[in-house]
Amino acid sequence: MTTSKPPLYTALSPALLHLYDVNHAIVVIIDVLRATSTIATALYNGAKCVIPVDCVAKCIELGRQIDGITAGERDGMIAEGLQHGNSPFEYSKEFVNGKTLVLTTTNGTKLLHMALDRGADRIITGSFPNLSAVCHYLTSQNQPVVLGCAAWKDRINLEDLLFCGAVIHQVKRQFSINCDSSQIAETVYLDAKKDLFEFIKGKNASHYHRLEGFGLEKDIRYCLTTDVADVLPVYENGKLIVI
Amino acid sequence: MTTSKPPLYTALSPALLHLYDVNHAIVVIIDVLRATSTIATALYNGAKCVIPVDCVAKCIELGRQIDGITAGERDGMIAEGLQHGNSPFEYSKEFVNGKTLVLTTTNGTKLLHMALDRGADRIITGSFPNLSAVCHYLTSQNQPVVLGCAAWKDRINLEDLLFCGAVIHQVKRQFSINCDSSQIAETVYLDAKKDLFEFIKGKNASHYHRLEGFGLEKDIRYCLTTDVADVLPVYENGKLIVI
Repeated sequence: MTTSKPPLYTALSPALLHLYDVNHAIVVIIDVLRATSTIATALYNGAKCVIPVDCVAKCIELGRQIDGITAGERDGMIAEGLQHGNSPFEYSKEFVNGKTLVLTTTNGTKLLHMALDRGADRIITGSFPNLSAVCHYLTSQNQPVVLGCAAWKDRINLEDLLFCGAVIHQVKRQFSINCDSSQIAETVYLDAKKDLFEFIKGKNASHYHRLEGFGLEKDIRYCLTTDVADVLPVYENGKLIVI
Repeated sequence: MTTSKPPLYTALSPALLHLYDVNHAIVVIIDVLRATSTIATALYNGAKCVIPVDCVAKCIELGRQIDGITAGERDGMIAEGLQHGNSPFEYSKEFVNGKTLVLTTTNGTKLLHMALDRGADRIITGSFPNLSAVCHYLTSQNQPVVLGCAAWKDRINLEDLLFCGAVIHQVKRQFSINCDSSQIAETVYLDAKKDLFEFIKGKNASHYHRLEGFGLEKDIRYCLTTDVADVLPVYENGKLIVI
């Protein structure tokens, strides 16, 4: 007797999210450089929760109301009026433990709100620092999955695709995958996995290029490191919390 | 002294075409299974021209007016009211020589009209059967290039991406490539190039699956064969002609 496996799809850009039915699915929001890596890190280091908001004004206003840390970037730099940026290294245990982070980023928080508006059943965030937590969760739920890449202003990027490939490689036996984007992601991941950093550097990935220009090689290396902040951020009532 | 190279971008889905500036660019329309493979084949076999139209009604009407062959598919089958389908094997020299083909397909002709509406400077069509003609043309023009995949109802597909990878692998020294989609395409192509058919079969590519279900394995094999109809279809005044 065979039991049917739930489907898994990969949306490589927010501009492709509408092609997939998220209503009964777990949507994994993926913004490897750097939003979802930073979310995992802040929560791993004891942040009470992360509240993703879609614009800087809302971030400032909410931060004031709840006495939270306001953080975020636009085009890779700390956004004007916010206290902190989007680097995981800003959110050490000493700094973030017990606090609430109000976060807005160029692509990641935007995608999360798109998934929400489209009626996603559940939303979690994924990054290499919490790869195993994501994979364990997905394989334990027996539910359809949509991997959603934040990309860069709707342009597909290499690092989000690589993370999808890493997830697919781990969970594929539990899912029915009839999705070329997923096959593409796994193929590239298998090619890259020996050394993800050297791979995206060698390919002159556009986001690598952008962040490396800001002196953020250390951030890139961290964001490509597996399981160093292995928690599962789940979106509930407007907040990302650890369950 | 360095001369600056023109950029090359890859739009893996029609839903991503708007992200790229096509105004001063050559846009390569790619619909490997099977529209652009069939276009190359019909022109190689002596068709006077191929007129791509975006709907079945227009195809029938125009075919009647100019006494052309009406051809096309919807969802992989011959569309109702048309004489012929979208298989390259229907367009032998004996049948097509000197004739005009009026063609409508699910994805390929739609993308061509999108590129046209967005003001593409020049439009050509590409497929494995005319890979070399496309590459020679692109490297001879010193002009920006956008590789546009027809995909499947906006979902990215493996075979169009593989063709982009094949082109990029051949022409990349002549272009400035700051585009992760292009890097992804070349990476997958290099993995697949030993045996493209076995690769897409092994990956259970969605389009392979669909056509194979119709008994069209022969078509798939042909459409993955390099340079067997090596002409350059160029869009001029509403027609694809060989220059």
